[in-house]
Amino acid sequence: MAAAELVIQKYGGTSVGNVDRIRALAERVRRVRQAGNRVVVVVSAMAGETDRLLGLAQEVTAMPAAREVDMLLATGEMVSIALVAMALQEAGCIARSFTGMQGGIITDGAHTHARIRSITTTRLQRDLSAGVIPVVAGFQGISESEELTTLGRGGSDLTAVALAAALKADSCEIYTDVDGVYTADPNLVPQARRLDRVSYDEMLEMARLGAKVLQARAVEFAKAHNVPLRVKSSFAEGNGTLVTKPDQDMERVVVTGVTADSNQAKITLTRLPDRPGIAGSLFGRIAEAGIVVDMIIQNASEGGLTDISFTVARADAQQTLAIARQSLAEIGADSVTLESGIAKVSIVGVGMQSHAGVAARMFRALAAENINIVMISTSEIKISCVIDDKYAELAVRVLHAAFQLDSPDAHGSRNA
Amino acid sequence: MAAAELVIQKYGGTSVGNVDRIRALAERVRRVRQAGNRVVVVVSAMAGETDRLLGLAQEVTAMPAAREVDMLLATGEMVSIALVAMALQEAGCIARSFTGMQGGIITDGAHTHARIRSITTTRLQRDLSAGVIPVVAGFQGISESEELTTLGRGGSDLTAVALAAALKADSCEIYTDVDGVYTADPNLVPQARRLDRVSYDEMLEMARLGAKVLQARAVEFAKAHNVPLRVKSSFAEGNGTLVTKPDQDMERVVVTGVTADSNQAKITLTRLPDRPGIAGSLFGRIAEAGIVVDMIIQNASEGGLTDISFTVARADAQQTLAIARQSLAEIGADSVTLESGIAKVSIVGVGMQSHAGVAARMFRALAAENINIVMISTSEIKISCVIDDKYAELAVRVLHAAFQLDSPDAHGSRNA
Repeated sequence: MAAAELVIQKYGGTSVGNVDRIRALAERVRRVRQAGNRVVVVVSAMAGETDRLLGLAQEVTAMPAAREVDMLLATGEMVSIALVAMALQEAGCIARSFTGMQGGIITDGAHTHARIRSITTTRLQRDLSAGVIPVVAGFQGISESEELTTLGRGGSDLTAVALAAALKADSCEIYTDVDGVYTADPNLVPQARRLDRVSYDEMLEMARLGAKVLQARAVEFAKAHNVPLRVKSSFAEGNGTLVTKPDQDMERVVVTGVTADSNQAKITLTRLPDRPGIAGSLFGRIAEAGIVVDMIIQNASEGGLTDISFTVARADAQQTLAIARQSLAEIGADSVTLESGIAKVSIVGVGMQSHAGVAARMFRALAAENINIVMISTSEIKISCVIDDKYAELAVRVLHAAFQLDSPDAHGSRNA
Repeated sequence: MAAAELVIQKYGGTSVGNVDRIRALAERVRRVRQAGNRVVVVVSAMAGETDRLLGLAQEVTAMPAAREVDMLLATGEMVSIALVAMALQEAGCIARSFTGMQGGIITDGAHTHARIRSITTTRLQRDLSAGVIPVVAGFQGISESEELTTLGRGGSDLTAVALAAALKADSCEIYTDVDGVYTADPNLVPQARRLDRVSYDEMLEMARLGAKVLQARAVEFAKAHNVPLRVKSSFAEGNGTLVTKPDQDMERVVVTGVTADSNQAKITLTRLPDRPGIAGSLFGRIAEAGIVVDMIIQNASEGGLTDISFTVARADAQQTLAIARQSLAEIGADSVTLESGIAKVSIVGVGMQSHAGVAARMFRALAAENINIVMISTSEIKISCVIDDKYAELAVRVLHAAFQLDSPDAHGSRNA
């Protein structure tokens, strides 16, 4: 980091998990400030606090109103900003906490999953010019009707990226409990390697496909506003992983990472008439319930009858099943079944676009271990296979090896 | 309470101390609403929460900035309003939580002890008209520069009274863990009797002199805006105590209550020149430090030299002593001493004004128990004596008996 930059630093729940960690965070920020840079700190609620608050709500009512959940959860980040501001002051810095409102983070009114509409940076700019370190509450904003809102899961990352864009920051650093983005979950694959760089699109796919290090919405926003993101560890030194625009180097690499997501369920409707519009009415109803259908496959028609299978998030499985059951008669299907024990294993890489045979190599690697592929979906930069959940970890290790992701020079770049 | 009234109900920390109590509170509010009344609920932070938060702050820094303390503490009431609103919704009511900002509570910028400047009731009025039960965060407000502020100790009572005045409520009920205002602390005097009515001025004196049931600032505000206050128990039925304008009945009673306050310290300067202006320069310096001097006595001058004693709150004793020491040379005094083991015992009653011999009766009652009186101060409706702290409880019991406060008909109304 060159001198006299404007840096946004976002610290997650574990990084503010107790007073010692808050002090360590303050010391890190102090050094960056002392080197002449301007810093905006964005923080999450202390680890465990959001769950504690949701637990209280659940004790009161099984179905808390979204508006009141936002009121409750917004307090988590407010505690963090106050304590971090105090720790920075104790470390000799000039610091000031900012609620979402005070930080000018204006959202729509969609409680618990609000979208940022605009950021009014007047007050932040004024404080930055005066040498103050603003400590902004992540995850929260305020609607035009002065309602407290929250941005949904991973919302603090989004706050940091949006502030970086609005303030035209030189860099946006996301501090977490891992030291970067890996070729696979190091808990599953000991040979997993930290990536120095990864493209927005790859990171997006990896986030959507189960990588937990960054939330997809934050990466989307970063891509749209061309904010370079750096994922780093709060607890170790190092350069972490830079999430940025793709370059030639990245495109030489076929596969950048392997992910697995067991949060999947498969629903199958059997023997329904193979007529246009039949599937549309069912998926329309599922979409109306706010449920996202991931993959869909339809078997070849036999005597005018067909089977349709599709996947949804496991949390939505029961509700989807109920909707499908209600539709059975109308769409003329025989039966509907739910299968929960499945996982989606994916390979991601921008280089895939220009390399042939990647899918074949993936299928062969899985077949060599007798892992049956139930469904397949592809995009320009990823291939996903639905398999039996019990093989998920094995599949990740097999694919990691098959594309040589443990080797920094050659990872996945050779043809099959 | 007649039907179709507008009622402000304030619940303290113990009344929202856990989820069961929050449910009980919601049930109480639901009944009032169901009877056709409109209700605004004001709540404090859950019991223990403010101390928990201050403990976190103390771990971070010994001297947290007042602005950040306010940011931190404001979260306590926000958790309460969210949970109470959820509980009311669960009980079938339409309810909505309001932060200080959303409730339109505009304060000055004096963090940790802000004063309410105005209340913008537009939003509350609109919700009340729509049948909503607003649940407003006590203790907090927002300054004109959008800073979160808190009102200082007992601030939630003040919020309730100020809302009652601004909304022209029919009544303002303060729910607490005791069932009203007593002639003395029932923990000290088993014969202490709950008062049905007490005047603003008596309540003010009692609050200032150590009664903890209501904060003086809330009573002052209620008096200034003529808001009748009712102090009731969250945990029992009953009419509690009405704090209101004095009437003839009240004036027939000489003494309404007895209080003791051990939070006192006495400072004595010896042998200083008995010249005008000498004391003024010392007390000016003490006032500049924000320290309130309570009683002052000056001994008769001997050979142009005199002694001065005065009392301050025990928490301010060391700082006051330091100031007095620094001034010794300038004012030409011999020495300064600090005595902490003292208490102020007081009798309060509007009837005192029209009854002779009350002070004499007080002094005789104390003398009969060999309790030495060190200092005396009086106002129209109270007499305070500073005594040795170890006699404080005995003095309260002796005075309670001497003015027959245990007898509802005759309490203190007979002449000595």
